[in-house]
Amino acid sequence: MAELSTCLPLTRVSTLKAHELIKPLIHRTPVLTSQALNQMVSTPQAQGKGDCQPAKPIIRLWFKCENLQRIGAFKARGAFHAIERLKQDPSFTESGGMEKGVVGFSAGNHAQALALAAKESGIPAYIVMPDMTRPNNIAATKGYGANVIVCPRFERETTAANIVAEKGARLVPPFNHPDVILGQATAGLELQEQADNLDAIIAPCSGGGLLAGTALSCEGTSIRVFGAEPEFEGADDCRRGFLTGERVTSVNTNTIADGLIGVVGEIPWSVIYERKLVDGMFAVSEEQILEATRLILERLKMVVEPAAAVTLAVALYNEEFRQMVEKEAGEKGWDLGLILSGGNVSADGLAKLFG
Amino acid sequence: MAELSTCLPLTRVSTLKAHELIKPLIHRTPVLTSQALNQMVSTPQAQGKGDCQPAKPIIRLWFKCENLQRIGAFKARGAFHAIERLKQDPSFTESGGMEKGVVGFSAGNHAQALALAAKESGIPAYIVMPDMTRPNNIAATKGYGANVIVCPRFERETTAANIVAEKGARLVPPFNHPDVILGQATAGLELQEQADNLDAIIAPCSGGGLLAGTALSCEGTSIRVFGAEPEFEGADDCRRGFLTGERVTSVNTNTIADGLIGVVGEIPWSVIYERKLVDGMFAVSEEQILEATRLILERLKMVVEPAAAVTLAVALYNEEFRQMVEKEAGEKGWDLGLILSGGNVSADGLAKLFG
Repeated sequence: MAELSTCLPLTRVSTLKAHELIKPLIHRTPVLTSQALNQMVSTPQAQGKGDCQPAKPIIRLWFKCENLQRIGAFKARGAFHAIERLKQDPSFTESGGMEKGVVGFSAGNHAQALALAAKESGIPAYIVMPDMTRPNNIAATKGYGANVIVCPRFERETTAANIVAEKGARLVPPFNHPDVILGQATAGLELQEQADNLDAIIAPCSGGGLLAGTALSCEGTSIRVFGAEPEFEGADDCRRGFLTGERVTSVNTNTIADGLIGVVGEIPWSVIYERKLVDGMFAVSEEQILEATRLILERLKMVVEPAAAVTLAVALYNEEFRQMVEKEAGEKGWDLGLILSGGNVSADGLAKLFG
Repeated sequence: MAELSTCLPLTRVSTLKAHELIKPLIHRTPVLTSQALNQMVSTPQAQGKGDCQPAKPIIRLWFKCENLQRIGAFKARGAFHAIERLKQDPSFTESGGMEKGVVGFSAGNHAQALALAAKESGIPAYIVMPDMTRPNNIAATKGYGANVIVCPRFERETTAANIVAEKGARLVPPFNHPDVILGQATAGLELQEQADNLDAIIAPCSGGGLLAGTALSCEGTSIRVFGAEPEFEGADDCRRGFLTGERVTSVNTNTIADGLIGVVGEIPWSVIYERKLVDGMFAVSEEQILEATRLILERLKMVVEPAAAVTLAVALYNEEFRQMVEKEAGEKGWDLGLILSGGNVSADGLAKLFG
């Protein structure tokens, strides 16, 4: 990975530079709207709690379809940006980095993203995958030409470190690095160009790269940014961190939104919480995530992972969020961007979710 | 329905006029490509038959995503065109047609399409639906404000005729009418603009409105048009008609491509076969349709009905088609448009297909 000292500062200007760099390498994914979902999200949903009436916000949704991004998820943005930045770094190129390669550890989308980005630059990639990784993710990563090393779940960091030591390859972490965060930020930048006068954006939060990037892409604009998490078994670590002021450092959850089982990293946390670039975190139940996934499939005709649907679940079902929108937006309503982070779920996986 | 004598002739020029008329009312749906699917379709698939080697065509696919059309299917094009044409017809407007309304019979996408198109012009719609119609299709049609009349499966035409007699409403048939065919043709026109130098297009064939329209949209160009059908239980009625020279007039099939159970209508047949505007018909098995549906879900991230996937199934698995492409296209290969006709399948329906 590029040395931290050589990284661009985490600002909106840097996100624009990142976009210039990777624009030819990634897809400008489409932004979709749906009258049916706008009507649904602008209709009171819950019974309210105690004496409260259910909220009646007025919301117009803009879906940024990162499921149609290369490798099927936003992770391609961060991986391509990290690789392009490495190629500009003399300490990488002049030490034979292009031949020594890069190392990543991931059970999912980062693995495929790094494998693809490295391949297109002719750089060897070593991808460490935990032994519970789904076979089709391993196959897809190998399909992009990477060397895949399967290891026990809790040994992935040491395995990766061993490869770094042995091969002289550079580590490209999945979220806790400025280059990766600035790459993910480009989805938010495009969304701002593609939607009309956004008032706010919701992004899912796991390691926090996408959420921190989205927040940076909106820094200094009038667009507010919120994060969405599953609440199941404490998966809402970032939301809980907001309440106590301390980053939660470990979680063990089996939420159906299996792209969101990670805890928010230090650097994303510094952007999201310490710099107050994210205005609030909201969590939703497994049932709400499943129902939102169903609506995205049936109404938008988009295949998404449950992790992507947490954004719509917050907009539709989180009363705290909805009360806030009703109060702040009034009759004018909000234009609300939702980042559909990825679509890497198999047909069999969909059958299990809805069977 | 507009009197046949007042309809535009079935020519490419008329398809351009139809597009001008309905362009503001419909979505210009995106066209997607996939490197992974291009690689797959350009790789020998079958073992070949007897002494034959499997075909090795070179194909670049262009997917026209009518699953993202209004109401989730191309049928919106034909319905909007039929309604707009009626509004231009003095025999409709001067006899109180705008108040008397329109009548359609359909268990699926035509029902919703006609309901929506009528609603947006403030015209009452009476939709006759057979009693085996899926409840969500009935709900969706009612959701567009139509009066839904449920009747036994084999009484739908008489039920519709009774409403025509009683209310003075006009029938809008699902495919066997020039205005509907010219509306469906606009998908093919857009695809020609959106893809680079197409060599051919495959469209699914049921009643034949979409296939006939696609053929008309390509009339006089160098683009060849082919039709795709399921072979299960004789659902390939149009293909069989090509072999004998006689239109097949009844079929009883339970193919998983349940949007394709109809037989090709007289007027579509006159375009498809008698005028030789379609170059060939190809059929695929249930397994091939299911596998193509899976690939579209997993690789394109698009929710499609199995009926839409017959096009990809032909390109991937029909050896007769593939031998033809290999022979005719040679090393240059073909740019092949596939019309993904619709995406109206529920999450539960997907779970049943893949569970």
